[in-house]
Amino acid sequence: AVRLRVREALGAREPADEVKVQGWVRSVRAQKEVLFLHINDGSSLENLQVVADPSLENRDLTFGSAVEVAGKLVKSPHRMQNMELKAETIRVVGPCDTWSFPLKMKERHPLEYIRQFPHLRCRNNTLGSLLRIRSEATAAIHSFFQDNGYVHIHTPIITSNDCEGAGELFQIEASNEARESAEKTHFFNVPAFLTVSGQLHLEVMAGAFTHVFTFGPTFRAENSQSRRHLAEFYMVEAELSFTENLQDVMQVIEDLVKTATSTVLSRCPCDVELFHKYVAPAQKLCCYSFHSYLKDFFFFFNSCRISYNEAVEILKQASQTFAFKPEWGCDLQTEHEKYLVKHCGEVPVFVINYPYDLKPFYMRDNEDGSQRTVAAVDLLVPGIGELCGGSLREERLPFLESRLQRLGLADTYQWYLDLRKFGSVPHGGFGMGFERYLQYILGVDNIKDVIPFPRFSHSCLL
Amino acid sequence: AVRLRVREALGAREPADEVKVQGWVRSVRAQKEVLFLHINDGSSLENLQVVADPSLENRDLTFGSAVEVAGKLVKSPHRMQNMELKAETIRVVGPCDTWSFPLKMKERHPLEYIRQFPHLRCRNNTLGSLLRIRSEATAAIHSFFQDNGYVHIHTPIITSNDCEGAGELFQIEASNEARESAEKTHFFNVPAFLTVSGQLHLEVMAGAFTHVFTFGPTFRAENSQSRRHLAEFYMVEAELSFTENLQDVMQVIEDLVKTATSTVLSRCPCDVELFHKYVAPAQKLCCYSFHSYLKDFFFFFNSCRISYNEAVEILKQASQTFAFKPEWGCDLQTEHEKYLVKHCGEVPVFVINYPYDLKPFYMRDNEDGSQRTVAAVDLLVPGIGELCGGSLREERLPFLESRLQRLGLADTYQWYLDLRKFGSVPHGGFGMGFERYLQYILGVDNIKDVIPFPRFSHSCLL
Repeated sequence: AVRLRVREALGAREPADEVKVQGWVRSVRAQKEVLFLHINDGSSLENLQVVADPSLENRDLTFGSAVEVAGKLVKSPHRMQNMELKAETIRVVGPCDTWSFPLKMKERHPLEYIRQFPHLRCRNNTLGSLLRIRSEATAAIHSFFQDNGYVHIHTPIITSNDCEGAGELFQIEASNEARESAEKTHFFNVPAFLTVSGQLHLEVMAGAFTHVFTFGPTFRAENSQSRRHLAEFYMVEAELSFTENLQDVMQVIEDLVKTATSTVLSRCPCDVELFHKYVAPAQKLCCYSFHSYLKDFFFFFNSCRISYNEAVEILKQASQTFAFKPEWGCDLQTEHEKYLVKHCGEVPVFVINYPYDLKPFYMRDNEDGSQRTVAAVDLLVPGIGELCGGSLREERLPFLESRLQRLGLADTYQWYLDLRKFGSVPHGGFGMGFERYLQYILGVDNIKDVIPFPRFSHSCLL
Repeated sequence: AVRLRVREALGAREPADEVKVQGWVRSVRAQKEVLFLHINDGSSLENLQVVADPSLENRDLTFGSAVEVAGKLVKSPHRMQNMELKAETIRVVGPCDTWSFPLKMKERHPLEYIRQFPHLRCRNNTLGSLLRIRSEATAAIHSFFQDNGYVHIHTPIITSNDCEGAGELFQIEASNEARESAEKTHFFNVPAFLTVSGQLHLEVMAGAFTHVFTFGPTFRAENSQSRRHLAEFYMVEAELSFTENLQDVMQVIEDLVKTATSTVLSRCPCDVELFHKYVAPAQKLCCYSFHSYLKDFFFFFNSCRISYNEAVEILKQASQTFAFKPEWGCDLQTEHEKYLVKHCGEVPVFVINYPYDLKPFYMRDNEDGSQRTVAAVDLLVPGIGELCGGSLREERLPFLESRLQRLGLADTYQWYLDLRKFGSVPHGGFGMGFERYLQYILGVDNIKDVIPFPRFSHSCLL
């Protein structure tokens, strides 16, 4: 018998004898004359319908059990499905204790409910679709960069420097007993942290390769249980040498988002549709069918571009009252970001040129007078807020040196200054939160539902 | 002017006017009549030759400086190169203080020397080639799994369980001051560690998708500065459901190694050749030209398969004396692995069916009597030793339950037992050390030279 995956069986052009399908039972319906099963093996959202003689039924053949079905693949009489499997034998490989199994047949469990079972929730339709989409998006992002000549770099997870001076760091130490008893020396001799960004390490690489990217885990020890934050999340970061214009950085961001999204939409349309139909019905997106969404996505991503100065003016003139009063020199709050996105017509908004004093030392000075700014860019998107952040980097040694000196960081970043001493080039880059990207394209409200194993304060299950 | 990358310029079919190339100067040679430059931008190992009028020379145009050269792309009169650039203008974008720059023109710096400069060593030919190869190998591994229907899973980096009971763990905590002053509560409420393997989390996913893989960082707090160990390294791990035979696991390992290697060889032949010519001259591999290596690779990977029992017999009959006496029930030491590989003719060797008591709780009991074994497999390769390790997993609830109970781990792994209660299936998987894989195909002696930023005990630079 030829072993077929459910996706292959569903997509078969021709009927076939002696076929074998393995998977998990998603529904059992026994009629007098016929037994119907739906089998899923994770290769698609859609199940394969199995039609069998009622004599093949047995006690262990329940929702959640693992089965191997052999038989003939035939054209289905039903309009909604192409093929079905006429079973000759059904073998229960692994039974399922349905009484204690937290997932129930044909029940649409809320995302909050299945979040309690991180080891089982992948067997739910919604999480199944999410994980297939996440996998396709990951591959699409890798391909986008590879196709455009970027070198992939594994920037380090453990680092001895603190890229953004963020403060909210995780520190690491060897946990062995030897260390406990002995004097407390560090495993790495110096204090070591989990990375908050691969940017500075990517900049190292941008001194040898003109286009580099990284896509890996980053960490924040933020004491927050919000829908927007995780302690462990994924970032896509890219760095471009010989780049003198923020416009070029924005172009790469836009190309990345468009390419990745169109790949995801074309490779798993049904999975995306599930989200737009059932998960994000409050979102504007779901008014559309999936296909018009696809069309519109590329249309409305002809995004809006405004400066920070303009953004502050828009906010000042807003009739709405904000909890944080908009003022030049202050950071944009989530309420402000939401307003700006709405003001621009619920489209993605690039905000550029932020106040010098708001941003980290590595951003490039625009030298634009008393309201001094740096060449920074944030991409704000509907429903999410900040999706990407980037900037031109300060490539001029004297500017960088004096700024680091004022901050008392010149010694710590001697190696970073070296990059400006030996063949420095104008360059820029950005980072995109991968989970926020998934939330954005799928309309998922809580970030914990777009990562396989969410980690946040007070919770690290499994 | 059309901006071309060095690789594009070198590969151009036709001459072109008004071309612009940006990169770093790898050599400068001023003759009376003509000025020669070699420019590299990381897109290839090969440099682009620039031919210019000596009047274009200037003080800043040195080794290591960043330049932008505009001119005509013309056929090169030299047999060894296709195209060269006739410069009309040369602009030094960023000068290089050659005196303090640790890399010197035309010097073949030893790998140990450049290891001291993690922020600059990527500008060296060997590390440049290594990083391009690493990037291609990463992409090839992702493609291999995607093309074969595997779902990519980001298994967690921070975890509350210790997969192998290895002991050599890194523990993590929030480093903020709040925590220092308050009672020492854990950020995650429980002790949390850096992952040593994604296997158990992959097994969760193998209960919904029949083929899953992960490719990410893993950690060991091993107090070792050997050529073979890093505190942070990358693992490729895969898990296959409905797999009853160790043979199937071995087949995937073999297909993965072959496919990834042939992709790397075809996408960056010159980079691989550099290693075989200059870096690994003591290796058997380097006797071959790159092309015969490619051919032979697939031939000699018709690998040897022996059982642990046979391996012990071979070792016992060896004329060589070992530091560790070979004995049934003892782990194979590096010296043993080397001998076995030599004994089999310096080919990759799969060793299967290891003693039950040597291996972790999740490996499948072979129930084979007094010299009881589990369905485990290790792949040993020339020059490296263990490259991959895998097994069938114990899918039978009673076997797993009693083993965990004997180990006193039944409570900790209740969630893992759940996987066997709800539609358990026979499954197996493996892990491959990515750095060891690179060492293997390139003949690199020290693992610190195949990762961008090596972390090991007493060292965490940048």
